[in-house]
Amino acid sequence: MFFHRKELQYHAKPEKSDPLFAKQLQEILGGQFGEMSVAMQYLFQGFNTRGNEKYKDLIMDTGAEELGHVEMIATMVARLLDGAPINEQEKAAKDPVIGAIMGGMNPHHAIVSGLGATPENSAGVPWSAGYIIASGNLMADMRANLNAESQGRLQVARLYELTEDRGVKDMLSFLLARDTMHQNQWMAALQELEEKEGGKITPTTVPAEWEAMDFSHKLYNFSEGEDSARGIWASGNAPDGHDFQYESEPVGFGGKPELKPAPPYVHSTPPLDK
Amino acid sequence: MFFHRKELQYHAKPEKSDPLFAKQLQEILGGQFGEMSVAMQYLFQGFNTRGNEKYKDLIMDTGAEELGHVEMIATMVARLLDGAPINEQEKAAKDPVIGAIMGGMNPHHAIVSGLGATPENSAGVPWSAGYIIASGNLMADMRANLNAESQGRLQVARLYELTEDRGVKDMLSFLLARDTMHQNQWMAALQELEEKEGGKITPTTVPAEWEAMDFSHKLYNFSEGEDSARGIWASGNAPDGHDFQYESEPVGFGGKPELKPAPPYVHSTPPLDK
Amino acid sequence: MFFHRKELQYHAKPEKSDPLFAKQLQEILGGQFGEMSVAMQYLFQGFNTRGNEKYKDLIMDTGAEELGHVEMIATMVARLLDGAPINEQEKAAKDPVIGAIMGGMNPHHAIVSGLGATPENSAGVPWSAGYIIASGNLMADMRANLNAESQGRLQVARLYELTEDRGVKDMLSFLLARDTMHQNQWMAALQELEEKEGGKITPTTVPAEWEAMDFSHKLYNFSEGEDSARGIWASGNAPDGHDFQYESEPVGFGGKPELKPAPPYVHSTPPLDK
Amino acid sequence: MFFHRKELQYHAKPEKSDPLFAKQLQEILGGQFGEMSVAMQYLFQGFNTRGNEKYKDLIMDTGAEELGHVEMIATMVARLLDGAPINEQEKAAKDPVIGAIMGGMNPHHAIVSGLGATPENSAGVPWSAGYIIASGNLMADMRANLNAESQGRLQVARLYELTEDRGVKDMLSFLLARDTMHQNQWMAALQELEEKEGGKITPTTVPAEWEAMDFSHKLYNFSEGEDSARGIWASGNAPDGHDFQYESEPVGFGGKPELKPAPPYVHSTPPLDK
Amino acid sequence: MFFHRKELQYHAKPEKSDPLFAKQLQEILGGQFGEMSVAMQYLFQGFNTRGNEKYKDLIMDTGAEELGHVEMIATMVARLLDGAPINEQEKAAKDPVIGAIMGGMNPHHAIVSGLGATPENSAGVPWSAGYIIASGNLMADMRANLNAESQGRLQVARLYELTEDRGVKDMLSFLLARDTMHQNQWMAALQELEEKEGGKITPTTVPAEWEAMDFSHKLYNFSEGEDSARGIWASGNAPDGHDFQYESEPVGFGGKPELKPAPPYVHSTPPLDK
Amino acid sequence: MFFHRKELQYHAKPEKSDPLFAKQLQEILGGQFGEMSVAMQYLFQGFNTRGNEKYKDLIMDTGAEELGHVEMIATMVARLLDGAPINEQEKAAKDPVIGAIMGGMNPHHAIVSGLGATPENSAGVPWSAGYIIASGNLMADMRANLNAESQGRLQVARLYELTEDRGVKDMLSFLLARDTMHQNQWMAALQELEEKEGGKITPTTVPAEWEAMDFSHKLYNFSEGEDSARGIWASGNAPDGHDFQYESEPVGFGGKPELKPAPPYVHSTPPLDK
Ligand SMILES: [Ca+2]
Ligand SMILES: [Ca+2]
Ligand SMILES: [Ca+2]
Ligand SMILES: [Ca+2]
Ligand SMILES: [Ca+2]
Ligand SMILES: [Ca+2]
Repeated sequence: MFFHRKELQYHAKPEKSDPLFAKQLQEILGGQFGEMSVAMQYLFQGFNTRGNEKYKDLIMDTGAEELGHVEMIATMVARLLDGAPINEQEKAAKDPVIGAIMGGMNPHHAIVSGLGATPENSAGVPWSAGYIIASGNLMADMRANLNAESQGRLQVARLYELTEDRGVKDMLSFLLARDTMHQNQWMAALQELEEKEGGKITPTTVPAEWEAMDFSHKLYNFSEGEDSARGIWASGNAPDGHDFQYESEPVGFGGKPELKPAPPYVHSTPPLDK
Repeated sequence: MFFHRKELQYHAKPEKSDPLFAKQLQEILGGQFGEMSVAMQYLFQGFNTRGNEKYKDLIMDTGAEELGHVEMIATMVARLLDGAPINEQEKAAKDPVIGAIMGGMNPHHAIVSGLGATPENSAGVPWSAGYIIASGNLMADMRANLNAESQGRLQVARLYELTEDRGVKDMLSFLLARDTMHQNQWMAALQELEEKEGGKITPTTVPAEWEAMDFSHKLYNFSEGEDSARGIWASGNAPDGHDFQYESEPVGFGGKPELKPAPPYVHSTPPLDK
Repeated sequence: MFFHRKELQYHAKPEKSDPLFAKQLQEILGGQFGEMSVAMQYLFQGFNTRGNEKYKDLIMDTGAEELGHVEMIATMVARLLDGAPINEQEKAAKDPVIGAIMGGMNPHHAIVSGLGATPENSAGVPWSAGYIIASGNLMADMRANLNAESQGRLQVARLYELTEDRGVKDMLSFLLARDTMHQNQWMAALQELEEKEGGKITPTTVPAEWEAMDFSHKLYNFSEGEDSARGIWASGNAPDGHDFQYESEPVGFGGKPELKPAPPYVHSTPPLDK
Repeated sequence: MFFHRKELQYHAKPEKSDPLFAKQLQEILGGQFGEMSVAMQYLFQGFNTRGNEKYKDLIMDTGAEELGHVEMIATMVARLLDGAPINEQEKAAKDPVIGAIMGGMNPHHAIVSGLGATPENSAGVPWSAGYIIASGNLMADMRANLNAESQGRLQVARLYELTEDRGVKDMLSFLLARDTMHQNQWMAALQELEEKEGGKITPTTVPAEWEAMDFSHKLYNFSEGEDSARGIWASGNAPDGHDFQYESEPVGFGGKPELKPAPPYVHSTPPLDK
Repeated sequence: MFFHRKELQYHAKPEKSDPLFAKQLQEILGGQFGEMSVAMQYLFQGFNTRGNEKYKDLIMDTGAEELGHVEMIATMVARLLDGAPINEQEKAAKDPVIGAIMGGMNPHHAIVSGLGATPENSAGVPWSAGYIIASGNLMADMRANLNAESQGRLQVARLYELTEDRGVKDMLSFLLARDTMHQNQWMAALQELEEKEGGKITPTTVPAEWEAMDFSHKLYNFSEGEDSARGIWASGNAPDGHDFQYESEPVGFGGKPELKPAPPYVHSTPPLDK
Repeated sequence: MFFHRKELQYHAKPEKSDPLFAKQLQEILGGQFGEMSVAMQYLFQGFNTRGNEKYKDLIMDTGAEELGHVEMIATMVARLLDGAPINEQEKAAKDPVIGAIMGGMNPHHAIVSGLGATPENSAGVPWSAGYIIASGNLMADMRANLNAESQGRLQVARLYELTEDRGVKDMLSFLLARDTMHQNQWMAALQELEEKEGGKITPTTVPAEWEAMDFSHKLYNFSEGEDSARGIWASGNAPDGHDFQYESEPVGFGGKPELKPAPPYVHSTPPLDK
């Protein structure tokens, strides 16, 4: 069960309205790595965790927090939209600054939500659950989470560069901090999982005999030029303890694939080519 | 520029046809973490890399390889569809095994592609570029890549459990191996980037004064129960060198958000509530 | 069968071209509550109606009309795009008003449709059949329809505020009127259905013993603060004739959900947590 | 801010596993009118409410409750997947019942989530924020909400017919009850709003002179046959107090739409037709 | 304006119910090349035609017809769903044929539409306007139309193979015929356009000096093996009158692309690679 | 297998940065007919070709080339984004030209990709595999290909009109040329297929007795007005050798569709209408 408390987790008050920034800020609300994504990703991971209550509680703690971030950013978007010049056509025709705002703002903020946040990214594309992952394997999912918090903090930093508003920057400073915590916690969990499971290659439960081990540590040079051969991934010890190898001229093992002619009942092209 | 060589990188020959498994196998072709995703993700990361040619070459090596995996799995899907019972209605009505195959196979394999692979996942949903990430920040993107190879290898392992076909298992054994390599290489690259950039919190370039540091290491207990307090993420040293803190009863700092009444020109509900 | 007559149902002539408004107007053509949505929603409802020919005819009357509205708005969009400054780069570099238009217009209007309407919303997202509903239950669907006409008329009113063009306003005045009619007619149908079916809770056919009646009239206070307790939905008579109740501190009946550990063959995390 | 409590709002324990029903049940989790939709719809409505705290609290009470329903159904799905025959190929080949289950279950439950719920509908299509609505106009949105609870309860009733499992039916009986409450409460709110705003045509704030009133109460017979003329929507008093009219042979007012020839710089077809 | 007449254009009566075929038949209703696609494609092309009334009328004739095909197939789907075994769980547990039907049918047909057609393809993915094209250039669009009718007729032929029902086959025989007509008419229109515009390369209006003519007739051998050199596309006269050339070893003209280092304000990876 | 060579196939260097054009150029990278579409379409067609190696090689030659075009345009987009004014808010507030650029550019270029290309169209909608087609029938697919190259070249021509940059125009001149070649080659292949298969109506393998031949050559006048009767598609010889016929007043053959009442277990509306 979820309970809502009216206070925001942190301040969400801009100094002044800014409809263009409202549009840009939507990215971290309803974009691929916005707050809707991390909230839903963590909640589904938590719901699906089988056993392992300590991890589940950590995941649910964070999922519930992210719901509060959705609220915080939605509130900021609404306030940035106060005073959007959506009924000032006459002025817009003469004043290019107003014209640029009307041309650049998300039309949904005027027409669909009536000066409110929308569940979509900075280009106006609706949020999709196709963004999220909850695989049931905690090591895999901690990596998904570490990635999400890394992409998310990067986007917050870029948005920080895009505004001069001290109120907005204040909220972003909090989000930078929380993304720091979340990167830290998922890295710590990951480290513990790798130790407890005794390996870093996910899933750790695959029997050795399932894997074609000859191919497990070779870097194939499929892009001309050997710059990559200079990396620590091309020779020496790999993170899983085996040695990396470099293959400068990869060959194929699978032969040329020729498919059987199509049977007549699929009405594809009969064999014409002789 | 890209060049195609006709040989497959590895064998893709099933022992016998299996339209149901062809449907399931689509997940690692056109699903969220299928080969289309990693191929396109790496290629876009490579195209967008600015400077850092060594990393770029590694990324392009791997992106080009993944295109070959798309081909390998597409070929396997086509061969698994040889002999799909799509014109055997009369038999199907009497033979429940044939009936189950016809009911369970992806209808697109019969109607749309004519016994060929489709660019979609195991549920028949078309692949979307919304799955991929190429942020321009290599540390963030290596984490995306490590996640992708972890989710991908997990799905391959699950598919391995779903079939008895030795030809299919042979191809999957190769994919398990390549995902092992790719997890290894992205981990190695990540380790090097963290060392060279001197930090693990992405992006490392955010000035300290941008961040509300009071909130950077606190675990908030937003889900009742304190199981998570027992973890290494709740106290002691965090991966970035600072100390974790645990907050059992989180409070709000942002006050209750009240928005201004809607201006008349958006035709929202006027204030009624007094 | 459908027949097309060349006349438009109403005027669709702007006073002058306006590519930015063309973009905004797309919302009521290809947006969630645009004319494509109501047309397709009503047609599918009509096709699927079983028995009840009087309702079916009303629905088909309206669905066919909405196809004409698609045409009317598409025509208006095309005319608003006459004279779009898409080959005036040199001027645009100097004239910020032209620059704002080029920056703000939908690029599809220039590149994809060549100054024609597109089947997408004001942000350029293609129309999706995921917007519509045709459930087979007329009471449920009349509510979907009443909602669609309410959202639609709201968006028309907001667009009316966004333009000074008398030709555009003339067309919008007609759309406001038709949405008034459609709200009226769906409300009337709904009222009749509620009377004939003898209830307002959809579907009316659920046997009483299927429902956990203890929970059918309770408002649970899941968001801190008791403002909602002051409403007519918290006590007194409910629309279905029973009495509302208010529960200030909701409790759970379902216990703490613990899932069985994952079986080994899904390669999820084994139980680590003890 | 949101807080999570570990107890489920209601029981979510099936008598036995049933992977096919797990797939079907996804509809009310991640479908157009599933719990994700109502949760997100209500939360965004609440976040965007301007003034009108009593309504906002009601909306937030309900939004937070729906998050708990997401959790309840996700838990049920996971339990229905216990014992899915995903590593029993040999048996499946011989036992048509197991074969039908494997052919009919959602492949994502086996391959992607590892026996957990997924954020998608019963066909495996990911949830989309394009489903939801938060317009800022409460009367319009209450109609969206009444529709959502009507469609939702209809789907629960249909799922009730699809299972014999008493544990599942118990959970569905609770959902039927809550959807009864939610239909009741949105109807009550709607009634109050119509009274306070003094009208039933949304938005009530449109000035009379904006609307082409001649067209506001006419039913046009665009589908051959006059069955619809027998309805209460074709004559007599309309819900807004005016009188309905019936137009048996609708005519066009807008003339034949002829567009200007395309300018050469869009490279469309030049005028050929003479 | 559009008018609807109640008669179907052709018979749509199956001999008996068949929920699995109902699912498959959805492909030509709501799939990429289903009737919704051709209807909407032609209508948008017609709405956007500038001048050229003869073509516009042909396009509108056909678009209106296709709306009638949507209706015809929707009706067939509904009739194929009569008698779907959705409340026969007890039987299904024992009877594998019923089990296979319940596992294989589209769950939306039971839960969402209540035995009606849905606006989605055979995998249950909703129709998207991203499928259609209306470019304003008639030659380009006639090619889109010829393709649509070719893919469509191919899918009808494959569906014909999938059923033994004489009523279904009767309807499909009509659709095969109409797709024959539509292929014929678009080919005829295309031929006329090519003659009138004096060329076959679309758009014909591009000035010669815009095009890097050295590259306009070369086949580059980017896939190892020279099978393609044996084709009429590798030497001799091309359809536009020039001569084809074959380049066995393609070279690059654009140099190695090196991008400038990322500026600090995007927080990408600084140059590390030396 | 695919190999990557670092050189670009052609120059991709703009004279100067232009973030607005970078946004527009995305259309031919990640739009419906962008390079991702043709690359993926051809590769899937090649993978699925059964027999017919000469055609397969041609398709693979072209698919591999198109991957190189993705790279070329991605590089151009990145270079057009050099110098995007994304940290110049103070200037933007005063300088409307900078304001228009910031309002008009794709926010993803600043926030998500950090001045790199994105896998999406000019409106910011992610590329979808729902755009592509690989049916297994070469005649049908050659028509899809001819259409794709026609739409693509049209869009390149329109983009050529939208820029004054000589570097950009140079790259577009190459793309115009390659689209000329590809239109030529698919037309040639089509002509050969029509000859070898002995017919132009796809698929050519449908037995005559499957088709309701009475309807195979009739143009039905479903849109009022007889302009279309003046075309070569209304009388005289059709491309398949039969004669066209014109039907000025189309009638229905299928009767009025009445569906059986809904069975009680779907909880639709019972028959009310008498
Ligand atoms: Ca290399
Ligand atoms: Ca906790
Ligand atoms: Ca409350
Ligand atoms: Ca009528
Ligand atoms: Ca070749
Ligand atoms: Ca006509």
